[in-house]
Amino acid sequence: MPTLKVLTEDDLIAAIAQSVGSPPRWLRAGIGDDAALWKTPRAHLNVITTDMLVDGVHFRLAATTPRALGHKALAVNLSDVAAMGASPRVAVVALGITDVVDDAWAREFYRGMADLAHRHACAIAGGDIARAPTLTIAVTVCGEVRRSDVRLRSGARPGDVACVTGPLGLAAGWLRYTHMHGEKTGDALTNRDGAGAIAADEVLLLRAAYETPVPRVAEGTFLSGARATHALMDISDGVSLDGARMARASGVDLVLDLAALRRWCEERPLRGFGSAALDLALHGGDDYELLAAVDGRAYHHLAKRFRARFQSVLGYIGRFERGSGQVWVEDNGVRRAHTPRGYDHLASMRAELGT
Amino acid sequence: MPTLKVLTEDDLIAAIAQSVGSPPRWLRAGIGDDAALWKTPRAHLNVITTDMLVDGVHFRLAATTPRALGHKALAVNLSDVAAMGASPRVAVVALGITDVVDDAWAREFYRGMADLAHRHACAIAGGDIARAPTLTIAVTVCGEVRRSDVRLRSGARPGDVACVTGPLGLAAGWLRYTHMHGEKTGDALTNRDGAGAIAADEVLLLRAAYETPVPRVAEGTFLSGARATHALMDISDGVSLDGARMARASGVDLVLDLAALRRWCEERPLRGFGSAALDLALHGGDDYELLAAVDGRAYHHLAKRFRARFQSVLGYIGRFERGSGQVWVEDNGVRRAHTPRGYDHLASMRAELGT
Repeated sequence: MPTLKVLTEDDLIAAIAQSVGSPPRWLRAGIGDDAALWKTPRAHLNVITTDMLVDGVHFRLAATTPRALGHKALAVNLSDVAAMGASPRVAVVALGITDVVDDAWAREFYRGMADLAHRHACAIAGGDIARAPTLTIAVTVCGEVRRSDVRLRSGARPGDVACVTGPLGLAAGWLRYTHMHGEKTGDALTNRDGAGAIAADEVLLLRAAYETPVPRVAEGTFLSGARATHALMDISDGVSLDGARMARASGVDLVLDLAALRRWCEERPLRGFGSAALDLALHGGDDYELLAAVDGRAYHHLAKRFRARFQSVLGYIGRFERGSGQVWVEDNGVRRAHTPRGYDHLASMRAELGT
Repeated sequence: MPTLKVLTEDDLIAAIAQSVGSPPRWLRAGIGDDAALWKTPRAHLNVITTDMLVDGVHFRLAATTPRALGHKALAVNLSDVAAMGASPRVAVVALGITDVVDDAWAREFYRGMADLAHRHACAIAGGDIARAPTLTIAVTVCGEVRRSDVRLRSGARPGDVACVTGPLGLAAGWLRYTHMHGEKTGDALTNRDGAGAIAADEVLLLRAAYETPVPRVAEGTFLSGARATHALMDISDGVSLDGARMARASGVDLVLDLAALRRWCEERPLRGFGSAALDLALHGGDDYELLAAVDGRAYHHLAKRFRARFQSVLGYIGRFERGSGQVWVEDNGVRRAHTPRGYDHLASMRAELGT
């Protein structure tokens, strides 16, 4: 029987409050009260989003650190807030804990979360702790957005360019890499399926993309603040599936430009995956980049401002056309219908059940 | 292999949206978008709270209906919102589902939730569905409260009366009843441990208190709107433990009046539990009543208005005195220190681990 420190719920809440640090002044009531209180500025709307992460489904406890897990659990929610063009303000955390969670684990987990929260002026304002057979994390984030800056996924128009805030397929690349090599990380290893090699620093980039993704909060408010941006969403289920969702919600077709996507796949850190890289980028999922539909006439100007502001590329990946919500892929002028594929939680359950 | 309807995440979201009904006009974006949007009225603060319910810990899937479960998962959160004197506006639901969850189950679950939400003008605005080894429900609710009506648990003052919005111990009574009799419900059975009998209609009251508790939302805004109310909280972990939390947060002592509590225990539906009833009322937990600290000089007037408005009793259970956060119980003039006891999630985990 392992020695488990006798820890009450109130003790743990106190430890968490310490990890999270003193609340910002604008937060009235928080950890330790029934609920947290804050004020939304005038002319702003509230945004709310929630995501659940389950051990063995979305992460493996044994393969990550509590600090990275805390980061990721918040990051996936901040990404959804960013996808509305909003700024996060308040996060609450419902945690289903098993007996592996002790004082030290909880401190590290909340530290990882708090570090990311502070970077975005978001307060961790409370939550709930329950006993559970499997570690389960449900984070909810509220944010705010100026009414005129709201961008939904349904706003894409014919003539818009489809562009993304960063490279795709890196998180899926990490999973593929660990599948090929086990979890000895940091090693430069020759890719066994015949493609090139993946350098040690590339491995670290892949791992970071999966374990501690950077939510594109500033990029989201930048894009939603531009009149040329007609639609915005995050593409955590993969650009293939989420792009199809944007097309359907907007009532337009999306034409993905494979040549453009392939150019990114030939760069670091994906180049080592060879011909498999395009699949990772299209269908991989767990990328926390934003997909924007930007007025075609304004795209070059906006991309230039984006590069000046973020020192990174607002990458062209295709365009929206008049249509009925279909996705096409175009390769060297040849177009074919594309069947969206990506991360579907129920589909993966069916796969496990063998149906 | 049971036949499992081929259901994608998008299909299920569509089914849920149908169960939940059309969103209210003030909700901009909701189910199907990255996040939901709404506006807080001026002079109001936002409130946020979250709670996680896990199969086998907080409920047993086999012993309840999906509709009752949907009701309860929302009710426990509405109770926390009510405890701040706030009105709920928006709920999001993160659901970890197993293979027992099909289309019909999900519809019923969301129907139970939506019925309760509509009664309180609260919109179910979205959420997340994940695969999980155990059914897990994390609901988060945002509400709003006029700045002057905020009541925290830390506001109790010496001279305040401690009072509750309804009878305590009923949910715990249901668990005790099923423990004694199994789950054949609706039967009037003689209580085997020597006390009186529990009538069939009393059994139904106990069951309803446990399965479909009524969050005291209107009672919360009524109490927080009264200047005489100094502190407010919900007592879902039992009045013994939560009362101690209010005393500690307020820096005053709480003196529980056992004679007053015992009078309620001698009434229906608890009377059949005999001498065990007082324990259920003090420590049972899972009651979703509110505990208020009310200025002693104003209590009788407020209780009269409460009865006129709600046709129920704002029940006196004790008083707050100058002190340092201790709890005392007083019985026929004899006072002794009381060790708070109630539902502690980590303590019950330790109990299971045998530590």
